[in-house]
Amino acid sequence: MGLLVKRTVFCISDGTGLTAEALGHSLLAQFPDTEFERLTLPYIDTIEKAEQVAERINSASERDGHPALVFDTIIKQEVRAVIAKSNGIITDIFSTFLQPLEETLESHSSYSVGRSQPATDNPAYINRIEAVHYALDADDGAKLHHYDRADIILIGVSRTGKTPTSLYMAMQFGVFAANYPITEEDLESNKIPPALQQYRHKLYALTIDAERLSAIRHERKANSRYASITQCEDELRQAKSIYSRFKIPVIDTSSQSVEEISTRILAATGIERRHQ
Amino acid sequence: MGLLVKRTVFCISDGTGLTAEALGHSLLAQFPDTEFERLTLPYIDTIEKAEQVAERINSASERDGHPALVFDTIIKQEVRAVIAKSNGIITDIFSTFLQPLEETLESHSSYSVGRSQPATDNPAYINRIEAVHYALDADDGAKLHHYDRADIILIGVSRTGKTPTSLYMAMQFGVFAANYPITEEDLESNKIPPALQQYRHKLYALTIDAERLSAIRHERKANSRYASITQCEDELRQAKSIYSRFKIPVIDTSSQSVEEISTRILAATGIERRHQ
Repeated sequence: MGLLVKRTVFCISDGTGLTAEALGHSLLAQFPDTEFERLTLPYIDTIEKAEQVAERINSASERDGHPALVFDTIIKQEVRAVIAKSNGIITDIFSTFLQPLEETLESHSSYSVGRSQPATDNPAYINRIEAVHYALDADDGAKLHHYDRADIILIGVSRTGKTPTSLYMAMQFGVFAANYPITEEDLESNKIPPALQQYRHKLYALTIDAERLSAIRHERKANSRYASITQCEDELRQAKSIYSRFKIPVIDTSSQSVEEISTRILAATGIERRHQ
Repeated sequence: MGLLVKRTVFCISDGTGLTAEALGHSLLAQFPDTEFERLTLPYIDTIEKAEQVAERINSASERDGHPALVFDTIIKQEVRAVIAKSNGIITDIFSTFLQPLEETLESHSSYSVGRSQPATDNPAYINRIEAVHYALDADDGAKLHHYDRADIILIGVSRTGKTPTSLYMAMQFGVFAANYPITEEDLESNKIPPALQQYRHKLYALTIDAERLSAIRHERKANSRYASITQCEDELRQAKSIYSRFKIPVIDTSSQSVEEISTRILAATGIERRHQ
């Protein structure tokens, strides 16, 4: 372990800042011994705004006693030039990579923000928003007749992560994800619930550690039978027996984020990411 | 406009692939005259898997008559080395930027995947999932007594984009976003709805073009009074009069994605992104 040093990190963009953040966070995750204070400054699209940002970078660097780290995806060159003159350590994502891409594509980049059609006219975007509304409509076993349209139906006992996962799949990837909670009645029958039988090929099961499930349920209904460890163990064991008997694929959500769960399920099933 | 050339793009990662995708898509958006076929290959974490990917890169390059473009965020060096030997044009995000960061941080990167604690133990992650459940609970004017906990309350007439925006704010940024639909009754009163009056400082209004609103509503209820252009114009005009009278900030969602709407609102209000 090194000494704990604090550094200020700026993710700067003339757009939403999401790409600069994603890249900055991935890179900095490789330095667990350093403490980072992260700031995202989106929509920095004029020289004047960039000058104010450059001042903030300089004063953070002075305060920390170390230059601030800057991840920037500013497309306008004259705006980016202002940031480049600051005292920060600049990771200039677009200049680093655009030139080699221009060479291989034998084409000049448009170097402009907002040149393309509005996001809301993009078919992939429209599909994503439809998928979000679908996930809400088909959440928690609602509107079973909508399952024809589902790309995937997530199943699992209560609080295994079905709802956030189906919403993430919709929002990020435009995937139509329904979800169905396995009830005690379903467990006693030891069969696939009748509503799901004709959609067996679309089912994907979520499971979780009994201890973690119990903790999550306690937050919702403290000291209930529903949250007790025995109840959680019983439900999970019976559910697993159904999944294994009917060869339904299963993912353990105990230590995985919705990003990981979603991308692993899509990779396993071959369902396409439809975000662009 | 150049000639339309098709190129295959691989976003490759030993994790979810989300960072490689975000960066790849941002960079390629600068080349609107080229058609790209995009593939994301996540969880490429062994030499064997990388060898299969390298073969796919080589055959796509041969088929296209141009080398494929590769955006890679593989951390394991021995796996990345296999990809580097393929015929693709490699944009190697981590090698390009990690070494300069190691120098400035005077620290070696851990160069490992999954080294950190499970995502699900991370307080920022737990908060994000809580925020998603909150957004669902406080959707569409439900459970008004929860507004104390809201960071922001999105208001607007029906189908202005409140629900997807509040879910995106929750999922991406861990922001507690409630939403409240402005009803015809509210519009007639020409006041802030009673349930919202004590939360006036948390309100942010969404508006939209009447034509676009009408089109969206027609998809939901074709040829209804609800979807008619006159009805949409009336509702939007009356709503705007309330917003302006009570100085509620307004954003026009007509041509902006949920990513843009969310990041612009957070930037305008100063509400912090809490994703890390």
